[in-house]
Amino acid sequence: MEQRDGDAPMLPCLRPDLVSLATYHPQAREAGADWLDGNEFPLDWPPSLKEKLAWMYRQDMENNRYPDGSHGELKYELCNYVGEGLTTGSLTADWLALGNGSDELIRSLLMATCLGQNAGILIAEPTFSMYQILARTLGIPVWAAGRDEQFAINTTQATELMNQEPIRVVFVVHPNSPTGNGLTPAERDWLKRLPPKVLVVIDEAYFEFSQDTLLPDLLAHPNWVILRTFSKGFRLANLRIGYAIAHPEVITALEKVRLPYNLSGFSLLAAQFALTQRRQLLSGIPEILTERERLGMELTKIPALQVWPSQGNFLYIRTTAVPLPQLHQSLRELGSLVRHTGGGLRLTIGSAAENSRLLQRLRQTCGG
Amino acid sequence: MEQRDGDAPMLPCLRPDLVSLATYHPQAREAGADWLDGNEFPLDWPPSLKEKLAWMYRQDMENNRYPDGSHGELKYELCNYVGEGLTTGSLTADWLALGNGSDELIRSLLMATCLGQNAGILIAEPTFSMYQILARTLGIPVWAAGRDEQFAINTTQATELMNQEPIRVVFVVHPNSPTGNGLTPAERDWLKRLPPKVLVVIDEAYFEFSQDTLLPDLLAHPNWVILRTFSKGFRLANLRIGYAIAHPEVITALEKVRLPYNLSGFSLLAAQFALTQRRQLLSGIPEILTERERLGMELTKIPALQVWPSQGNFLYIRTTAVPLPQLHQSLRELGSLVRHTGGGLRLTIGSAAENSRLLQRLRQTCGG
Repeated sequence: MEQRDGDAPMLPCLRPDLVSLATYHPQAREAGADWLDGNEFPLDWPPSLKEKLAWMYRQDMENNRYPDGSHGELKYELCNYVGEGLTTGSLTADWLALGNGSDELIRSLLMATCLGQNAGILIAEPTFSMYQILARTLGIPVWAAGRDEQFAINTTQATELMNQEPIRVVFVVHPNSPTGNGLTPAERDWLKRLPPKVLVVIDEAYFEFSQDTLLPDLLAHPNWVILRTFSKGFRLANLRIGYAIAHPEVITALEKVRLPYNLSGFSLLAAQFALTQRRQLLSGIPEILTERERLGMELTKIPALQVWPSQGNFLYIRTTAVPLPQLHQSLRELGSLVRHTGGGLRLTIGSAAENSRLLQRLRQTCGG
Repeated sequence: MEQRDGDAPMLPCLRPDLVSLATYHPQAREAGADWLDGNEFPLDWPPSLKEKLAWMYRQDMENNRYPDGSHGELKYELCNYVGEGLTTGSLTADWLALGNGSDELIRSLLMATCLGQNAGILIAEPTFSMYQILARTLGIPVWAAGRDEQFAINTTQATELMNQEPIRVVFVVHPNSPTGNGLTPAERDWLKRLPPKVLVVIDEAYFEFSQDTLLPDLLAHPNWVILRTFSKGFRLANLRIGYAIAHPEVITALEKVRLPYNLSGFSLLAAQFALTQRRQLLSGIPEILTERERLGMELTKIPALQVWPSQGNFLYIRTTAVPLPQLHQSLRELGSLVRHTGGGLRLTIGSAAENSRLLQRLRQTCGG
């Protein structure tokens, strides 16, 4: 049982190991600053689409009634969208589960696999922090492998860990956050060789930017799950909608452990509408990719910085010229809020103006 | 490890005990029927308030940004509303936690107390089914005490169970669902005597109807939690907002285990707006209470039915004249959807017209 010095005593009805668990506090955001720390899309929906959604809410949604706990209509629309990624066959609703953001699905996956089984999860750091955080809230152990200089997973080390420890789930992000790299052929081969007693979770939160999916391989691997979200490319972070694609047996397990009314009627409505309007909503993505290439190119010209290629809507940098907390703070004071994580800074691609300001502030702080 | 005959085998990466766990499917609802099965308020918000909320959404909410994970503004408004129930002092935000419906808070309470502790919960049946369902999704054991003929908890039996079993949480509803009875003085005394190693959860989902709260007692009991919701009296079931009131140490534990962005920006906005408009939104409650008394009175005149007093927006009936599944189905075919649970039928108080139709259909089915 961990206990930190100075922690307040806990009521005896509470889990004693919670003392050592920190509350997750998102970074504070000053109004007026450039928010380049959340990997959000930099633009809100066009006013005409928000107006239409608001109109549908007033017409069709009754505040006083419980929402559709089956997510039937949304799953129907989603089948069409996700199915576009398949070259053969189509996708049916029993391959889909919806969550209150991907976060809830990560929690459901942890619950459906590890709870009460003396089993834990494997991650490769640096990666998305939520796998580890949510595992700890459930008392589930976490093992971490390393990555090489291009951030590919050290699969030798990962395999050793899997042979030694009761690991039941492997979480990877494709492309990885915060580092931006997609899964290499070697990493994909390694995932394909993992036995059916291990659940493989491939988080494709940035799929709308990468257009690179492992969906065709999923069909042959009933122990694989792909996670997606409406928070990034669809510009709906505020409404908290994520989804899982997996074999119906995995989906059944997820549906058994989820909250019966986990999505509000308004979020269901917004996600359905987003899918019908996807041509317009996703039309801003090429500009983000162009901006990512421009910013990446300019960053390589700053000698003090190391920058990596990225398939997401963000870039990852490291430097030894300036201590990172200091660089992060300087950028903040100059008006660009970025994310300090995993031994580097993750820079969300914003609008052209925001990216130019960030570039200028990085030059100012790091020389260049 | 439970396994039911005929159940499909599970992938080896999934928890084997999930085989025996049923997926929670809400009752199907025919369009055009009277929906008296969900304890919802029978009326949507007035159009002017929905219009104002839709306007605020369009003006103030950015779809593309993550919502306020601290719930700061909503907690501020909520302090005022909840604090009205205190005769001395005021309530501060560190006594409040918000959830994706009360369901998420029930899950958080279970996680924060029982997980990994070989500990379980006590309920008294019949009661709200979600405590038991959510405990099972987490692999947490459930013990059930009985109730007397007026549905007061058999505290002798409950005390025996608590002496014999590793019970860490007691869940009660006040007033109880589905039976409608508020906690008696004897039940309150029993709850007050429970030791600090037991968390006492008092679910006041129907407070806006009962106006009877244990809040003043909560201040002296750091092991107590009161749950409330916007789903009933505030007519917001569709937007999924519940809250917990408890000692800051319990709140801290709940905040540690919750999903960081558990409430969408639209739900936060709707709940805040509901609080500022509470005079208008809650003004329909006296009519529900009048209808409850009228329906209750008329039901007592049907000899085949037994009916109990209720402090909620529903009535509970039993009968031996007709098998309950048959009565439930007959009412459904006639157009009134009610809830068959706990050995009786729970009838939500609807509009005057809905209640009159229900009465007429019950007379038709049971004689009277």
